[in-house]
Amino acid sequence: MRAIHSLHQSLSATNKLPIIHSTYKDFKFEARPQLNPSNKKTTRLAESWSNLLQLHIETAIHKNLKHSNPHHNLVNVEDKQNTPTKSPKEDISGKWREIHGSNEWESLLDPLHPWLRREIVKYGEFAQATYDAFDCDSFSEYCGSCRYNHHKLLDKLGLSMGGYKISKYIYAMSQIDLPRWLERSQLVDTWSKDSNWMGFVAVSDDEESKRIGRRDIVVAWRGTVSATEWYEDFQRKLQPIGQGDAKVEHGFLSIYTSKSDCTRYNKSSASEQVMNEITKLVHFFQSKGEEVSLTITGHSLGGSLALLNAYEAANYFPSLPISVISFGAPRVGNIAFRDELYQMGVKTLRVTIKQDFVPRMPGIVFNESLQRFDDITGTLEWVYTHVGVELKLDVRSSPYLKRGFNLMGFHMLETYLHLVDGFLSTTSTFRADAKRDAALVNKSCDMLIDELRIPHCWYQLANKGLECNAYGRWVKPKRDPEDIPSPTAELHSQNYVLDMQKDYGVESLYFLKV
Amino acid sequence: MRAIHSLHQSLSATNKLPIIHSTYKDFKFEARPQLNPSNKKTTRLAESWSNLLQLHIETAIHKNLKHSNPHHNLVNVEDKQNTPTKSPKEDISGKWREIHGSNEWESLLDPLHPWLRREIVKYGEFAQATYDAFDCDSFSEYCGSCRYNHHKLLDKLGLSMGGYKISKYIYAMSQIDLPRWLERSQLVDTWSKDSNWMGFVAVSDDEESKRIGRRDIVVAWRGTVSATEWYEDFQRKLQPIGQGDAKVEHGFLSIYTSKSDCTRYNKSSASEQVMNEITKLVHFFQSKGEEVSLTITGHSLGGSLALLNAYEAANYFPSLPISVISFGAPRVGNIAFRDELYQMGVKTLRVTIKQDFVPRMPGIVFNESLQRFDDITGTLEWVYTHVGVELKLDVRSSPYLKRGFNLMGFHMLETYLHLVDGFLSTTSTFRADAKRDAALVNKSCDMLIDELRIPHCWYQLANKGLECNAYGRWVKPKRDPEDIPSPTAELHSQNYVLDMQKDYGVESLYFLKV
Repeated sequence: MRAIHSLHQSLSATNKLPIIHSTYKDFKFEARPQLNPSNKKTTRLAESWSNLLQLHIETAIHKNLKHSNPHHNLVNVEDKQNTPTKSPKEDISGKWREIHGSNEWESLLDPLHPWLRREIVKYGEFAQATYDAFDCDSFSEYCGSCRYNHHKLLDKLGLSMGGYKISKYIYAMSQIDLPRWLERSQLVDTWSKDSNWMGFVAVSDDEESKRIGRRDIVVAWRGTVSATEWYEDFQRKLQPIGQGDAKVEHGFLSIYTSKSDCTRYNKSSASEQVMNEITKLVHFFQSKGEEVSLTITGHSLGGSLALLNAYEAANYFPSLPISVISFGAPRVGNIAFRDELYQMGVKTLRVTIKQDFVPRMPGIVFNESLQRFDDITGTLEWVYTHVGVELKLDVRSSPYLKRGFNLMGFHMLETYLHLVDGFLSTTSTFRADAKRDAALVNKSCDMLIDELRIPHCWYQLANKGLECNAYGRWVKPKRDPEDIPSPTAELHSQNYVLDMQKDYGVESLYFLKV
Repeated sequence: MRAIHSLHQSLSATNKLPIIHSTYKDFKFEARPQLNPSNKKTTRLAESWSNLLQLHIETAIHKNLKHSNPHHNLVNVEDKQNTPTKSPKEDISGKWREIHGSNEWESLLDPLHPWLRREIVKYGEFAQATYDAFDCDSFSEYCGSCRYNHHKLLDKLGLSMGGYKISKYIYAMSQIDLPRWLERSQLVDTWSKDSNWMGFVAVSDDEESKRIGRRDIVVAWRGTVSATEWYEDFQRKLQPIGQGDAKVEHGFLSIYTSKSDCTRYNKSSASEQVMNEITKLVHFFQSKGEEVSLTITGHSLGGSLALLNAYEAANYFPSLPISVISFGAPRVGNIAFRDELYQMGVKTLRVTIKQDFVPRMPGIVFNESLQRFDDITGTLEWVYTHVGVELKLDVRSSPYLKRGFNLMGFHMLETYLHLVDGFLSTTSTFRADAKRDAALVNKSCDMLIDELRIPHCWYQLANKGLECNAYGRWVKPKRDPEDIPSPTAELHSQNYVLDMQKDYGVESLYFLKV
């Protein structure tokens, strides 16, 4: 890896872990007045809306519905069902660099600027897609793969209008024993014995690129399904990365860099796959004279991989604007790792939930108590340290969420996206005009208050994917041939080149060489 | 209730709990040779079929698939997927009384006669339908009801070709506190606050009636979803029934007889509803000169209710052939209750699984140890006693089932139906040509060996019934108006009369009076 390339001008000791107190007043976007409410007005709005919903938040949350007021009704919750789930898209092309973190998101986080909020949710939904499409049925011969091919994925998950196209899937393995990481089929003949689908690379289309002011390459990394238990298994071994003192958790690095000629999907490592794809795309669009950015996102373990990916990409592309938007990610490396990332200009927005345990891993006690020695211990190589700017959310801010302790629920990405969607500022209540469908929170956990009538863990296939055949037998249907993973990417490659030509109009010699 | 009407001629001390050792030789049906295999031949068949399936039963069952032979494959299991799930129907009209138990199923159970096996499964599937169609979503305003109206139910569950039509739904409540019995919505405005759908009455159509030699009225009683825990709550209070010394468990009796003018669905009790319907149907078909039978079925608690129902029906219709086919039912009453049932000629086939706990409830130790004093304690009023002929199944007989302890799995009705389908005799292995779909066993438990690749607890709605609306919000769809339960049966009544006229050709004055 190459040496450090850029030292961002705004880097200073004080903004390593910025404390946010500024308001929109300091930030000169031409935001419409209604997008810039005062805290007082916001609070009033939220209150009147809560009354309208008849959620009786404070009283209802702490008691069982069975014993609640019999005249309590849910009519207005049902009214809400027939409203859009998204705000109209704004043209952010004039301010994309700030939204992308060029200024460490200063003045954008508290209160949270609506343009930034929308972008955070957009990237978070890519990360969520890596969970939603993941086949974790241990009786499936494709367990550990994506259920759809990369052309169909976003469409299948209702994200086809998001303005991005997936160009490549990433697969990962680990050469060290990481208990409970790999999802593996119980069958003998399977698509892969060692690798899991670990995420994808996507590119903004022309329309979205126009709106956001540049061609945006996104990498979305999948986390682990059983994350909270998983982090307990960490050995807390730091391993060197790069040429300097930087060290990172060896488990994360193993997943990012492992490869083996004996495997079908990891003859090249996740690192090589993703860097190869990023390189192709950056060259392709830069050769067309376009402005290009790289945004890397992930939740939990996916957030850790995002940082490693950003570290590597920043080494390869010193002048490329690179941001990481992570959700509920644990610490990844030591202080030198953090400092190198800062020096290379990687911008990291680290979204956390106060009640979520994972961002405090690994080494809670050890790290927390040493935090105040940050400057003194700058050379210590054995302390895990967070990177970037924190956007800290609070489960208690949402009137939709239960208050009880829920280790999994606090960590779920959908809980994060719900709280981002409702976040106005650290001093105001949940956003009155939050539009995202709250039902999504309960996809894989039990966090929503009973009044909403959303079952817990509802995201499931009919009959777990079994179908009744013509004889009346319940069988696992064959996967659509076009969705069966294939290690021979030749065909895909060809389609891919054709797709790129169609989508982006110009034929690049670089592409044809691949 | 009226006094005892008939004392069945075959009743004797020895067949109160018959021990079955006879073979087909004693039973003079004109069964086709292939339906009457010798045990030896059956064993060979089963073995060769197991080999064909490559299930490697003895080795595979006790070890994890992950460590199994890598050359092990499931090709032939997949072949099996494209075979019928049912044997052709036989004309049993000439021997229906014996099949219906007139001779206490003597010589029919060991080996199990294929005609009887098919009938047991048929009735068991009616009982299973009461589970499969039950709405137990506590966020549904219709929690505790049937998801479909009675015209659609059998069709929705793939039983429309079974030759029966449902004529009436039964609802029950309980005036005593029975923890964990009633499934109740958490909402305030619901279809009913006190009642649950508890089963149905159905009648054989003309074609089926011809095949089985009489017009068969079926009552199917639903059990409880969380049965095994539920029986632990029993207070073990016996309560008098009828005019004599007969006593039954007060919890069962409460569900069968409770009513209240304050309720919507139990202004009449389950007892009154079912007896009213049976009476109408018996009179209707007898007035046409048809031979009529009553077959009452149920699993678990449903089996208990079936016995109470049979007791009452036998009092009303002394000359009507009445049988109970129960699955995994607990004891219901004392010895006097049992004797009265025998004296009235009620025939009970009690299907049990050796490993199932519920048939030993209530009062395992107490009852089991007193069993040998049966004759001496004939007058004791406080001993729970089983009724009828037992068909005892063994989980270990099936190569499809796991061997581990599984309290719920051993009790599930689908496990029962699978074992009945495979039962040949107490001395032979699982039936080689068993056709019922083994996948059904895992509907609501985890009993199937991994080789079959059937997920556990797979019987589930897509996204727990949530649907994505036009705005992209996940909402609980409104129930189809025709499936919403209604306590005012006028409309149904009218349809019902029209249906009966259409189905059975004759208009009965009795029907028009209802």
